[in-house]
Amino acid sequence: MPASRGVRHDSMRARNLSVVLGTIHRSGPHTRAALAEMTGLTKTTVSSLVSDLLEAGAVTESGAVRAGERGRPGVAVSLSGHRLATLGLEINIDYLAACVVDLTRTVRLRRTRPADNRNSNPADILRELRDLVKETTAEAESAGLRVIGAALAVPGTVEDGVLRSAPHLGWRDVRVADLIDLPFAIDNEANLAALGELWFGSRETDFLYVSGEIGIGAGLVVGGTVFKGTFGLAGELGHVVVVPDGPACRCGGRGCLEVYAGQDALLGTVASVAELVGRLESGDRRALEACERAGHALGVALTSAVHLLDPGRIVLGGIYAPLYPWLEGPVSDGLGARLGQMRGTPPALTVSGIGADAAVLGAAGLIIQQLIAEPAQVLGL
Amino acid sequence: MPASRGVRHDSMRARNLSVVLGTIHRSGPHTRAALAEMTGLTKTTVSSLVSDLLEAGAVTESGAVRAGERGRPGVAVSLSGHRLATLGLEINIDYLAACVVDLTRTVRLRRTRPADNRNSNPADILRELRDLVKETTAEAESAGLRVIGAALAVPGTVEDGVLRSAPHLGWRDVRVADLIDLPFAIDNEANLAALGELWFGSRETDFLYVSGEIGIGAGLVVGGTVFKGTFGLAGELGHVVVVPDGPACRCGGRGCLEVYAGQDALLGTVASVAELVGRLESGDRRALEACERAGHALGVALTSAVHLLDPGRIVLGGIYAPLYPWLEGPVSDGLGARLGQMRGTPPALTVSGIGADAAVLGAAGLIIQQLIAEPAQVLGL
Repeated sequence: MPASRGVRHDSMRARNLSVVLGTIHRSGPHTRAALAEMTGLTKTTVSSLVSDLLEAGAVTESGAVRAGERGRPGVAVSLSGHRLATLGLEINIDYLAACVVDLTRTVRLRRTRPADNRNSNPADILRELRDLVKETTAEAESAGLRVIGAALAVPGTVEDGVLRSAPHLGWRDVRVADLIDLPFAIDNEANLAALGELWFGSRETDFLYVSGEIGIGAGLVVGGTVFKGTFGLAGELGHVVVVPDGPACRCGGRGCLEVYAGQDALLGTVASVAELVGRLESGDRRALEACERAGHALGVALTSAVHLLDPGRIVLGGIYAPLYPWLEGPVSDGLGARLGQMRGTPPALTVSGIGADAAVLGAAGLIIQQLIAEPAQVLGL
Repeated sequence: MPASRGVRHDSMRARNLSVVLGTIHRSGPHTRAALAEMTGLTKTTVSSLVSDLLEAGAVTESGAVRAGERGRPGVAVSLSGHRLATLGLEINIDYLAACVVDLTRTVRLRRTRPADNRNSNPADILRELRDLVKETTAEAESAGLRVIGAALAVPGTVEDGVLRSAPHLGWRDVRVADLIDLPFAIDNEANLAALGELWFGSRETDFLYVSGEIGIGAGLVVGGTVFKGTFGLAGELGHVVVVPDGPACRCGGRGCLEVYAGQDALLGTVASVAELVGRLESGDRRALEACERAGHALGVALTSAVHLLDPGRIVLGGIYAPLYPWLEGPVSDGLGARLGQMRGTPPALTVSGIGADAAVLGAAGLIIQQLIAEPAQVLGL
């Protein structure tokens, strides 16, 4: 009588699969006995759930048990890096990218195709992306990995699987949900970069990831969860007002952060970020002034962001990572001067260690996150 | 064998109590049969849980069943307004307030004591608040209501039950958790006002509540939940930067919203909000200019807030409620001009219907919310 304890059997089994896989993910490897103790499930139930997860390829067994584990020695269960993988995809303004990541978060494959996607035809770019998916999926399969799902990072706003607006691509209302024949998700580049930082970067659980690109976005992570707002449009740091009557921004507003600290403002007549770094290193006055101005504007916009979002720390990523040595001073000074009395100390300012890879890694991480939250649904158990 | 279905009995019973009470709260009254169908619990389990809730005074029974309810006619279970109540408290700059609310969200009692709490001695004010608690609790008891808990709204930042900083009161690091002999919570005035708007005002589930007082705060509600940030310090709208090199603000920053749109800036030499409204109605030029300037600044700060927080709508409360006729134009114009191209339409701008009562009502609502989320713990079941 599955219903005799008051909750229907299927939904409880699905919930318990998620509890067990989540425990292994957070703190494994563990023996079945330890999993039973930690989850409050019976050993019989845990064994049955672990069998299903083993068969589906999500977990693996080994003789190694962590020191300090209670109970008699036994076989330990951990996430498997050998059978399942997820696919991260990214359309950016000047490249397409893909990566394949296994469940232990090891990057198994990484591909970038330079491209000029400004004011492009969506159909052309999506065709090219589909080729990249085929290529990387086939490579993953030849390494014995089954790709269980994919997610796509885009430089724009996303609602219900539709790319609503990506101004730098010149795209509006592009439906990408049926791009490929796999379980598929799509999200904003900054949200996924924040997830990338969480899963593949510092792995801290509370921060605001600032994505400096041609556009500037931010992804807030609180307690290990990305905050997305009401319509999934939160974190548009690039259009926080820095100077209310400042220069016109492409968004229709004036004096937005992007006008002062977006890639175009930072580069000026310089051709690339690498060249800008070269000029900064050689003490070029105009390059230094551009960084100083950008850092000052970032300090103002981040002050407003800290007051509204209350992040644990601030992580500068994208092109702000290589420019960090020149941005750190003006940004820190601005935050310190403006936030000092409201908070004992302003949130720590740090630089992302995974740089330009954050969004595409985060996309792969999103599908792993879905698998761990809902293994029954994602794996059809 | 309680554990035979895999989850321990006590935690499952606590969870099921919360599921049943939550269902009654969201969509009741319902018969036991309907509750069983909606929750996936067996009728036997539901009956036993309802008996406990009846005995504790959280629910009541009646013959009335809603039209369209499936199954044979029966006795319907709904939240009881007759036995349990919660206490909302507020320390504001110029008054202390208390209210008693029953579980049907009917306000049973409301008391306000005018006071001048600027730069006050915390011990004096807390003593007076304790008197107010005694008085209102006794009145509630004489009406047959048992007060199960209280929450306090304060005009400042709160961490771990400690009022960290309330600059207008001149208080720092004041411990109020052991104020009274009841389960007790404390939170920022703007967060609780947002909850008040959710539970007693429009009852919409997605909005940014803007609390205009001597300080300006904001509480974001997404999907019926108040967003609080990492340390509970989110929503400090009053210190969003409007003009980076504007006048000095008491927070140490410059050109913050509060400098342009806080109560002191709006009133100028006028003695009260009522007098300001009188002057506005008579077309006083200086009063109109102060509102225009405040509305313009609010439009700029709210543009930044919409980009970062992505609220469903914007609700102006506190002193902005009586001033709404004069603020609506400049705020709407600012939002429309700056947000137009990034979003189809900016979030709707509305005015709170519960005005100055939002925070104290929200405080009472917080305890009801805790009861519904964790009835086993709050009621000792």
